[in-house]
Amino acid sequence: MADLQRAAELLRAWDKILILSHRSPDGDTLGCASALSRALIALGKSVQFRCADEIPQKFSYMFAGISFGDFEPEKIVTVDVADKALLGALEPLGDRVDLAIDHHAIHRPFAKEIWVEANAAAACQLITRLISALGAAITPAIADCLYTGISTDTGCFKYPNATAETYRIAADLIERGARAADINRVMFDTKSRAVIELMKRVYSDMEFFHNDRCAVLCLTNALIAETGVREDELDGTAAIVRQVEGVQFGLTIRERGENEYKISLRAAEPANAAEVCQKFGGGGHKGAAGCTIYAPLEEVKAQIVAACGEALNAL
Amino acid sequence: MADLQRAAELLRAWDKILILSHRSPDGDTLGCASALSRALIALGKSVQFRCADEIPQKFSYMFAGISFGDFEPEKIVTVDVADKALLGALEPLGDRVDLAIDHHAIHRPFAKEIWVEANAAAACQLITRLISALGAAITPAIADCLYTGISTDTGCFKYPNATAETYRIAADLIERGARAADINRVMFDTKSRAVIELMKRVYSDMEFFHNDRCAVLCLTNALIAETGVREDELDGTAAIVRQVEGVQFGLTIRERGENEYKISLRAAEPANAAEVCQKFGGGGHKGAAGCTIYAPLEEVKAQIVAACGEALNAL
Repeated sequence: MADLQRAAELLRAWDKILILSHRSPDGDTLGCASALSRALIALGKSVQFRCADEIPQKFSYMFAGISFGDFEPEKIVTVDVADKALLGALEPLGDRVDLAIDHHAIHRPFAKEIWVEANAAAACQLITRLISALGAAITPAIADCLYTGISTDTGCFKYPNATAETYRIAADLIERGARAADINRVMFDTKSRAVIELMKRVYSDMEFFHNDRCAVLCLTNALIAETGVREDELDGTAAIVRQVEGVQFGLTIRERGENEYKISLRAAEPANAAEVCQKFGGGGHKGAAGCTIYAPLEEVKAQIVAACGEALNAL
Repeated sequence: MADLQRAAELLRAWDKILILSHRSPDGDTLGCASALSRALIALGKSVQFRCADEIPQKFSYMFAGISFGDFEPEKIVTVDVADKALLGALEPLGDRVDLAIDHHAIHRPFAKEIWVEANAAAACQLITRLISALGAAITPAIADCLYTGISTDTGCFKYPNATAETYRIAADLIERGARAADINRVMFDTKSRAVIELMKRVYSDMEFFHNDRCAVLCLTNALIAETGVREDELDGTAAIVRQVEGVQFGLTIRERGENEYKISLRAAEPANAAEVCQKFGGGGHKGAAGCTIYAPLEEVKAQIVAACGEALNAL
């Protein structure tokens, strides 16, 4: 297991570096990739970046003005990638990764060198320290990228993963020029007309089970097509189902294909989301976990709701 | 104008202190009152607390276990009170206030001694420093109160008023035992079933005008009665209408009485909310303003929407 010093030592020695983000990219994996790219380029290195999926428009500012190189990569670095399967279409590159920088407790090793700190709220916390260890400056653009990753991975400092260190790093980034309020407005307080349509449906369609301790929301392809939301606009919906007073398990059931449904499960203390999802071959954290169930929607719903019921009875 | 040292000096010398919060109390005024009460009592002083309005249930934990005294107050301190009118029914006490601790730039002096720092995101930032200056310990219970005030006044660190210092104070409070995630969940991520009903109606009933640049939401007494929400649960709704992408004017029309409607108008740059509200005898800031219109609802809506349309045409 590598650490901060080892990761810095490796990167100082390397050049022609390809940085990979995970599929369905979020603020943290993209914040890491854009900030680290900027720092390595400032140190005179050639850098490339790839992600299996398109970068959502709201994150595009993080990559503005980065001069990526055109070269055959000598080294590959993944950021915030817990499993090579999460590279999506780039998974074949997974066996060639030289350094994986991650903060997931469930990290499944695939790289030659691994630096994982599971107590960090965001992989961007690691990248912030790494950039300083590399001796590169935290420019305002880098501060924006890092702040974005930390803010989005902590739900704007709302979730239990935000520690005193998280707040202190955010303070440092604000002093280095991170436009915290502007970033947070775009990330948390801007809704497209399609999202307004989605919210209308979400609040109407939400169902409650087990004496209202379990809330369920089904995001079918039909609903998504009718509202016109983009994939990345569905992010916030998983949070809504567990915001209801008294709800222990908040479930989002997302249609992925014919008879294929992805479950996002959020749990409030003392309930354990990971335990429920493990029964269906999935996993995650105590507070948030996921799994995929292959069956028709009504059956999927019945199975996962029943599993939540058992877990609630055992509390 | 007093400062931190002067405020600490006064409080060290005083005893039998009455602390006052502003009417319609929020997390900041109550966080100040409860934290300062706890610290002063720990220093051996007798303390009382009063507020013109009832403390919302979600803030009650801040006052758990405080031993308020029964005495004739010798000194009165207000916290987060910008104007003596904001004492509500306790306004008669406004002329007898010995020390006002506040962070509002628009503070209208009414106390014998005034300590105002307008660049502080929350009055709780001042109280945090004051408690340390008094030599009292920041206990976990005090840290909870202070964190609550800072988090609620910054929209969970989302608004532009949250500075690097705000984040650092929050980090210190977390290390002193503030249960940040639990507090934030109650403050920001907990919706009663009534609020879920309200949201369902809000998203269904919201109307758009002027090529979707103006969003309107009507909060009638009938809607509020049907959903069963409490007055303090309506807080977030004004924000929803201005979160829609492309919306320049977000309007909430709230029924106050027969043919009496209070308009809350939010404007996105370059639109000016105050200019529109001034036409109806109201006022406010460029970004947020209000007015009251006396007419039936449909007429009120037509008038204010027309005024917004004129303002949009003039942009």
